[in-house]
Amino acid sequence: MDLPFLVENIFQNNKRYVSRAITIIEADDERSAILLNEIHKKTGKAYRIGITGPPGAGKSTLTNQITKYYRQRNISVGIIAVDPTSPFTGGALLGDRVRMSEIGSDAGVFIRSMATRGSLGGLSKKTIDAADVLDAAGYDIILFETVGVGQSELDIVNAADTTIVVLVPESGDAIQAMKAGLMEIADMFVVNKSDRPGADNAISSIKTILMMKDHTAEDWLPNIIKAIASENFGINEIVEEVERHRKYLEQTNLIYKKREENSKLRIKEIVHDIITSEVWNEERTRELDNSVGNVVTGEISPYNLANQIINNFKSNL
Amino acid sequence: MDLPFLVENIFQNNKRYVSRAITIIEADDERSAILLNEIHKKTGKAYRIGITGPPGAGKSTLTNQITKYYRQRNISVGIIAVDPTSPFTGGALLGDRVRMSEIGSDAGVFIRSMATRGSLGGLSKKTIDAADVLDAAGYDIILFETVGVGQSELDIVNAADTTIVVLVPESGDAIQAMKAGLMEIADMFVVNKSDRPGADNAISSIKTILMMKDHTAEDWLPNIIKAIASENFGINEIVEEVERHRKYLEQTNLIYKKREENSKLRIKEIVHDIITSEVWNEERTRELDNSVGNVVTGEISPYNLANQIINNFKSNL
Repeated sequence: MDLPFLVENIFQNNKRYVSRAITIIEADDERSAILLNEIHKKTGKAYRIGITGPPGAGKSTLTNQITKYYRQRNISVGIIAVDPTSPFTGGALLGDRVRMSEIGSDAGVFIRSMATRGSLGGLSKKTIDAADVLDAAGYDIILFETVGVGQSELDIVNAADTTIVVLVPESGDAIQAMKAGLMEIADMFVVNKSDRPGADNAISSIKTILMMKDHTAEDWLPNIIKAIASENFGINEIVEEVERHRKYLEQTNLIYKKREENSKLRIKEIVHDIITSEVWNEERTRELDNSVGNVVTGEISPYNLANQIINNFKSNL
Repeated sequence: MDLPFLVENIFQNNKRYVSRAITIIEADDERSAILLNEIHKKTGKAYRIGITGPPGAGKSTLTNQITKYYRQRNISVGIIAVDPTSPFTGGALLGDRVRMSEIGSDAGVFIRSMATRGSLGGLSKKTIDAADVLDAAGYDIILFETVGVGQSELDIVNAADTTIVVLVPESGDAIQAMKAGLMEIADMFVVNKSDRPGADNAISSIKTILMMKDHTAEDWLPNIIKAIASENFGINEIVEEVERHRKYLEQTNLIYKKREENSKLRIKEIVHDIITSEVWNEERTRELDNSVGNVVTGEISPYNLANQIINNFKSNL
């Protein structure tokens, strides 16, 4: 398929080609970079929302309800669900069929699951690349949904304009979220399944932890919203809070600064990927294979071998 | 302080200088690479054990008990405790004082805590560098203790010869461990606090998950050991299982292969760090700062800007 044809079909939100473009991105094809260059001028219009939290917090249900809310207002939604399933068990996404039957047939909704398949490293980059495709296709809202368990997942939601951290009332959840680094990235909290015991305690814990953070009067202070996503309870408040945060970012021009910072991180990762693939060509990969035994036996230090390889790379440019 | 003097004092296990060497590593000083080159020839003798699991599983207590077991047999132990405390709350290590009073005064024990302080990236590298110092200082056993929450922590325990995954009987723990990638890296499991309800169920869950993994008759099959670390129950079995795994690795020569693989990963990370710091010198960091706004507004794509920066790097070598 020729590139201009693919690009044109992305701009027209032809879902078949939007899907194909994300497949190209997942394959880490050389065409991926060319494609992303071509569509870049049409990006930047979508508002990006990250939804994260521990497993079992109800993120998928919440994502579906938020999507329905926007669709009732004729706002289009692209969803990127990241499944950090371990390579151990494979990549089946529970609940995906339920989701598809509920919102997947809507022309104004695009859903894509991306699995890590063992290589956590490239996932956040590919996820953000995929969001660019949805952005260029004209989706008004992009929802990233991911389990908050590791650096790669944090990188994904960090790329969002507004990040929602979803917790459940069970004790200690807030503390775990803090340890996992979720408290720093939250623009708002949702205590889902709030009809379970302990919801008010969970809110108190979150408040206490938030109060420990230094902040000035101008800083955005995350609100905490009770919800029961499965019963559609609290969804209005959640989306209204997202919109309030969006206005705050736009009025303070922080949205621009935030996107600049995210673009910097993204460019650094692209630079890293390109250089890494150039350094580790066939010849130098073989050099590493052949010499690593001498590192294990103590004859050469890892730092010296690393420098040998770098010098070889530089002298062969 | 001159380097030969420091190196000589590390080889003599002068704790004051061992400690100073790790401080140099933490500071990411240029001297760090030189120091590690100098001590490398004396490394490779220590046996490295990783202890990981969810927060609250009792990893510190277990580490202390395993240390005492080895000390009763006059085997020296170096401990590197990694605290992934978020930058949000600072880096205080709970239980460290208890630990110091119990085993810290023993001349055959060295304890060091390393905190992430927000930069998860470099942590596994620094931890492994610090282990080299303890190895060169002559410690027989090196224990890495870390919360199993992210890729960086997995990298740390992956650098061990034997990895112990510690769980508690609470339901769902095994499933969470699987999702966090801990099931793949375990050479053995400890169900700690096994006097609590659910211990046998937890063991069944772990067995079920292990059975899902493809394996041949020659493969190492992780055993599951019940323990109550706080009462010293199960510690003998744990260390015996570690020694059994060590014999297996040595007899199959897998220990050499494992260390080769780990050295490769380590060398790749060193190459990455060196090149990254060369690419992102003052000039190119400024170029990124000045041009990133054009990426946000859509005038230049992140891939094109990344390539501009790489070309500038190459033409200025």
